[in-house]
Amino acid sequence: MPDDIEMIADWRPFAAAHRVAGAEIDPAAGVVAVRWSDGRTSPFHFAWLRDNCPCRLCVHPLTREQMFEIVDAPDDLAPAQAEPEPGGGLALAWEDGHRSRYDAGWLRANAYDPQSRTERNRRTPARVWDAGLAEHPPLFDMADLERDGPEFHDWLVTLRDLGLTLIRGAPREAGFVARLARRIAFVRETSFGVTFDVESKPRPDSNAYTAIDLPPHTDLPTRELQPGLQILHCLANTAVGGDSIFVDGFAAAERLRRDWPEDFAVLTRTPLSFWNRDAASDYRWSAPIIALDGQGEVAEVRHANFLRGPIDAPAEAMPGIYRAYRRFVRLTREPDLRFVRRLEPGEAWVFDNRRVLHARTAFDPASGERRLQGCYVDRDELLSRIRVLERTA
Amino acid sequence: MPDDIEMIADWRPFAAAHRVAGAEIDPAAGVVAVRWSDGRTSPFHFAWLRDNCPCRLCVHPLTREQMFEIVDAPDDLAPAQAEPEPGGGLALAWEDGHRSRYDAGWLRANAYDPQSRTERNRRTPARVWDAGLAEHPPLFDMADLERDGPEFHDWLVTLRDLGLTLIRGAPREAGFVARLARRIAFVRETSFGVTFDVESKPRPDSNAYTAIDLPPHTDLPTRELQPGLQILHCLANTAVGGDSIFVDGFAAAERLRRDWPEDFAVLTRTPLSFWNRDAASDYRWSAPIIALDGQGEVAEVRHANFLRGPIDAPAEAMPGIYRAYRRFVRLTREPDLRFVRRLEPGEAWVFDNRRVLHARTAFDPASGERRLQGCYVDRDELLSRIRVLERTA
Repeated sequence: MPDDIEMIADWRPFAAAHRVAGAEIDPAAGVVAVRWSDGRTSPFHFAWLRDNCPCRLCVHPLTREQMFEIVDAPDDLAPAQAEPEPGGGLALAWEDGHRSRYDAGWLRANAYDPQSRTERNRRTPARVWDAGLAEHPPLFDMADLERDGPEFHDWLVTLRDLGLTLIRGAPREAGFVARLARRIAFVRETSFGVTFDVESKPRPDSNAYTAIDLPPHTDLPTRELQPGLQILHCLANTAVGGDSIFVDGFAAAERLRRDWPEDFAVLTRTPLSFWNRDAASDYRWSAPIIALDGQGEVAEVRHANFLRGPIDAPAEAMPGIYRAYRRFVRLTREPDLRFVRRLEPGEAWVFDNRRVLHARTAFDPASGERRLQGCYVDRDELLSRIRVLERTA
Repeated sequence: MPDDIEMIADWRPFAAAHRVAGAEIDPAAGVVAVRWSDGRTSPFHFAWLRDNCPCRLCVHPLTREQMFEIVDAPDDLAPAQAEPEPGGGLALAWEDGHRSRYDAGWLRANAYDPQSRTERNRRTPARVWDAGLAEHPPLFDMADLERDGPEFHDWLVTLRDLGLTLIRGAPREAGFVARLARRIAFVRETSFGVTFDVESKPRPDSNAYTAIDLPPHTDLPTRELQPGLQILHCLANTAVGGDSIFVDGFAAAERLRRDWPEDFAVLTRTPLSFWNRDAASDYRWSAPIIALDGQGEVAEVRHANFLRGPIDAPAEAMPGIYRAYRRFVRLTREPDLRFVRRLEPGEAWVFDNRRVLHARTAFDPASGERRLQGCYVDRDELLSRIRVLERTA
């Protein structure tokens, strides 16, 4: 199959480990049954095959986006002929005269027989951690992250799967956070700015900008989509106090599920409201503290005691909600779940803000200077960057 | 109650239409039963009341964010005394000596007896529309939107509830979209830039940047959170073709629900994948085309045929998915659902990109110039802006 067809519908290279050994049209089932060189059989419905025709009439050759719309095919469209190609792919001749050719690697990668689906949808489980992380902290040197090498890829994958990294050897210059963010993509701007300064301010519009202790929280649970990654870079830290504390929200949620499954269930189904509001803005969002994915796995944690609004729930549910909430917050205070470390100038935390709760102890602004800069990058950007790096891996 | 306590926990003024007429501690139920001047009774659990104490020890007086954490109160904390205040509010003396005072308007606004909850959670239903919108198009003059007056508020509320507006009298200058966006908040940047130029490009990375027709779609269904608002501003439009088409995705979804409820159900529960990918990025997200809220109302539409990936579903579900998908796409082509209008230089569309599908007819780039500029603003920003404007309404 010529290169121009092979790649048109995707940017990834596809493993050519399996070839189409046979293809049988089954009009009753409305499928082409493909038999692979390893014996596996995959059914492909006529509509699915027509929908995914990668030819230059169906897919724009430059944008690689579809021009054809399946709604324009007759409901009863069927192939007149289906056969393996010499190169291992599948060739179809449709009853209306259109011809389609499918690369073997692409077709196998998108097959939807039960076994192929299981293989494709297998996920890397999150690497859940506790205070023991201090023994092997996820350290990265900034010098290694300046280029797209294996260390850079490792850093991104660690962010995705572990959710917390510490970067050393960063310059002690203001604005570095945005430069680091741009190694992944662009910064997600918020009402607090493109980047923000975390220091004790005379007129704070967030508890983060005071010197009081901040209990474990995610940033901006007040937004429909919490920022995916947060970067916090240290410019100065001579004040007494102000240590960083991290808790893996997935670990806390899983412990709640293990010890108090009813409380866990309450926190997955009860929307709590979170508010950020000042003279110029008024953000509100309601969602459960613990979000599950379709498989019942913990997918996201949303939590900031100091941004929570009054709980709005039926009166009979209120005692159970407060019981569950208290237990969850107590878990975030358990020493064996807390990773504690002081951030020094020239270091930066980068962490998954939709999973990892961060906190800081109170500090004394009269005792010295404490100045961090921060910014956000969304998870879409992290995952896109990893996918592009892995195209050639 | 002195002003400094009254307002500490919120920024909104609260109607003082009702006063606390009586307050009875019920230790068995764990509530303070508040009797209002209009006869309504609202229970407030001890934990809820302690959690929402607005005093200067519990809430930071500058940030108005909570410093107190309910987990620090004993599980069995109860008030020793509860009584109405002369100003109409509620005063509590807790067994541990802490004292709390609640403004009557605030307490009523957050009461969670069944009637209060129903009143509070009543929503403005979306104003669903069809081709008839052409008879009374939602027109706004840019001159009226330059300041925070009633017209500006009306524009924002129309965007929220109707989802589509047309602005006239805009300057024909590049970069205007960002200035208009900043009337609401900041721009949501994407891989296509802070702002983007929609024109026929020699090396397009999106079908939007060709001259072919674009079927009805939302932008960036490939991201976890689709951009909330899209602005499209016309700088030039002398080419033949290139008319704008809009379809209310809520209207199309509701018609599907009415005529083919099974197909509607399929599209609410089947995740479809959407991809944006080029040499430098690879965005993917899977979600159902139609998202429902907790009440079963259509809350979001996510749809772009040209960004859809191969459907990944069990083989037995595939025929039903294609049937439902075809029927939905056919509805987006129904003339009586389509609002068609040509955008002229100095005009701008602003619309809800998570609801309203937009399309354009093919144009002939040799016949003249067609140049639009666009950008995005998230829904959080729209809603925040409306809330702040309505504080003093």
